[in-house]
Amino acid sequence: MTARPDITPADAAHPGPSADGSGAAAANRRTVISVDAMGGDAGPASVVAGIAASAQKNPDIAFILHGPKAELAPLVARHRELAGCCELRDAPGIVTMQDKPAHVARHGKDTSMWSALESVRAGEATVCVSCGNTGALMLMSVLRLRRLPGIYRPAIAVMWPSRNPQGFNLLMDGGADISADAKDLMQYALMGASYARSGLGVSRPRIGLMNVGTEEHKGRSELREAHDLISAHARGADFDFVGFVEGRDLPGDTVDVIVTDGFTGNVALKTGEGTATLIADLLREAFQYSILSRIAALLAYPSLRRLKKRIDPRRVNGGVFLGLNGTVVKSHGAADATGVSAAVKLAFKLAQTGFSEKLAERVAKATLMAQDGGPDDDAPGQSDAPNGAKT
Amino acid sequence: MTARPDITPADAAHPGPSADGSGAAAANRRTVISVDAMGGDAGPASVVAGIAASAQKNPDIAFILHGPKAELAPLVARHRELAGCCELRDAPGIVTMQDKPAHVARHGKDTSMWSALESVRAGEATVCVSCGNTGALMLMSVLRLRRLPGIYRPAIAVMWPSRNPQGFNLLMDGGADISADAKDLMQYALMGASYARSGLGVSRPRIGLMNVGTEEHKGRSELREAHDLISAHARGADFDFVGFVEGRDLPGDTVDVIVTDGFTGNVALKTGEGTATLIADLLREAFQYSILSRIAALLAYPSLRRLKKRIDPRRVNGGVFLGLNGTVVKSHGAADATGVSAAVKLAFKLAQTGFSEKLAERVAKATLMAQDGGPDDDAPGQSDAPNGAKT
Repeated sequence: MTARPDITPADAAHPGPSADGSGAAAANRRTVISVDAMGGDAGPASVVAGIAASAQKNPDIAFILHGPKAELAPLVARHRELAGCCELRDAPGIVTMQDKPAHVARHGKDTSMWSALESVRAGEATVCVSCGNTGALMLMSVLRLRRLPGIYRPAIAVMWPSRNPQGFNLLMDGGADISADAKDLMQYALMGASYARSGLGVSRPRIGLMNVGTEEHKGRSELREAHDLISAHARGADFDFVGFVEGRDLPGDTVDVIVTDGFTGNVALKTGEGTATLIADLLREAFQYSILSRIAALLAYPSLRRLKKRIDPRRVNGGVFLGLNGTVVKSHGAADATGVSAAVKLAFKLAQTGFSEKLAERVAKATLMAQDGGPDDDAPGQSDAPNGAKT
Repeated sequence: MTARPDITPADAAHPGPSADGSGAAAANRRTVISVDAMGGDAGPASVVAGIAASAQKNPDIAFILHGPKAELAPLVARHRELAGCCELRDAPGIVTMQDKPAHVARHGKDTSMWSALESVRAGEATVCVSCGNTGALMLMSVLRLRRLPGIYRPAIAVMWPSRNPQGFNLLMDGGADISADAKDLMQYALMGASYARSGLGVSRPRIGLMNVGTEEHKGRSELREAHDLISAHARGADFDFVGFVEGRDLPGDTVDVIVTDGFTGNVALKTGEGTATLIADLLREAFQYSILSRIAALLAYPSLRRLKKRIDPRRVNGGVFLGLNGTVVKSHGAADATGVSAAVKLAFKLAQTGFSEKLAERVAKATLMAQDGGPDDDAPGQSDAPNGAKT
């Protein structure tokens, strides 16, 4: 698959990376993120504002922005920060939130989502960011980027505010697939360990397996089987397996990564999100109740703002699709500029740490171990597996 | 099964209901709640303080309190409110949180938990309240009280703070059983409808089925099957089936009862609980950050206290076991006196509304309908099913 021919600098007045020699050289030093401008609830203006905010903060990022060129060009031109670091790719079609994943995955070749994934597939960009329809993005990612060898079910890793020093824990699968067998859960654990190192900066992540109790005899049989599989893979690896954990450990400090099937994970995340929103709403009402409480709200404003920032979902915006040849960051559908910028920051961090390659290596090694009949004690990341890392 | 012979008034100085004729007459007018004094994290003193608080507020409740008599008698004697309305039943054994359910369900005849359930089984009390080991209480309840005819999996119904006028929604199953097939989920919907009427006072409850999306084509096949079963039973019934809902609807106002399997339900509840606790902790830290924020905290105290009361888990203390011959309220293991009193209040409300009988009728009718090949349009609660209500 070749890159589309209609590569255009964002703004003729500010030559982009591919418009002249110096731009291209700059692009070589930069980490290129492919961004789907369409499909989010807040519209392309928010996406463009978000990447502009990122460009201002980080001169090492370049963007390939996908969507209807006539609509995007004036938006991009408004942001001087994007001059010279944002290429436009014309893609007239838009995947809406109502579109059926199977339909757009087959017939959506003209869409900005397809085009954004194509840039990763072609190796022009390291990571793709989209605010669009999750189901469509997942299916299209699987079909276009393909699974890593040995991976049956890719997963979505989602960050959640926690008491840990890094401020967040990782849950996966957040909803890519409604089921997962023991082997899938084991692979989620391995992929989660890689992501926790690259995305959260935890050098030796603690992995837990979600259950309804921490006793080893509890829970469904596939969970007990997954428990044993992950235990076996944890020997000599760069992560610790803490065994079964419960829903309350997701915001806690006993574990960094929690592994579960996508049905349970999705319900848990949405319940937690809804509960946090309810509390925030009731808190707002409480502070508007009387004159005294309104004065209190004024005095408490800086503290409450700090708290809000600490657990603001926009700050941790981005479910990451793991298990594919390339990394896809799914930004929240309702993300504003701040949210899009957070997703770009995450994408940049993952690209910088060589996350895709490390993950591919880890998976290849695990696949090899499984073929050999079990895990060994070699240090991870040094595999010379014959079906090894694809980049 | 007969009542134990060692019935003793709580305090000789204040004759109990069975100590003289007037007491017995009073007991006849009162709703009797059977309370397991042992097994909670806070110890029997909190349980006794909790039922004393209930006795003070509500003169229509009488208690049968189960546990080691020598330990309980002095605790009960300290509370004048309990004079004349609290019988003691000596049961020296205690079910601990570490005990294996299967073991105590077989060998726990001398325990306070067993004794407390026995009072319901013998018809002396309408509802049993316990703060003890959930798994043990559930298994013992199933073995001693037996399932209602037609019920395969009993469930735990749990209240959760919500935006609805009644302040709470119901989730079931909260963790009685790790799986549920389509027929079980349908029965949860029927039982949840009964409980929402009696426990929440919602005359026409809206029932939702938990899924990862609201589209009818989504989710596991047993969920689509359950969707059709509940739809069929909702025709002409006293509840509305709103179809698939998501985790975020649990704290919302679109539905009153959410039905799911006990694995998903338990994980969702614990994730929500953990997230709420994290927010509360961070809020406390935020208010202690500076002198200004400490002053703000003082001014906001009444408002924050109102908010805390609104979503205080102790106020909604009590998962209710549904699907048995008799009602069991499982109070939180860490419940203090306020929590125990809330559980007693719930138990009283359920007893007053004749909840056990109504639930049995509804289940009997549904069983009959299933035998007849489908639901009919008769008004509910008027069944003359041959395998009908047991009380």
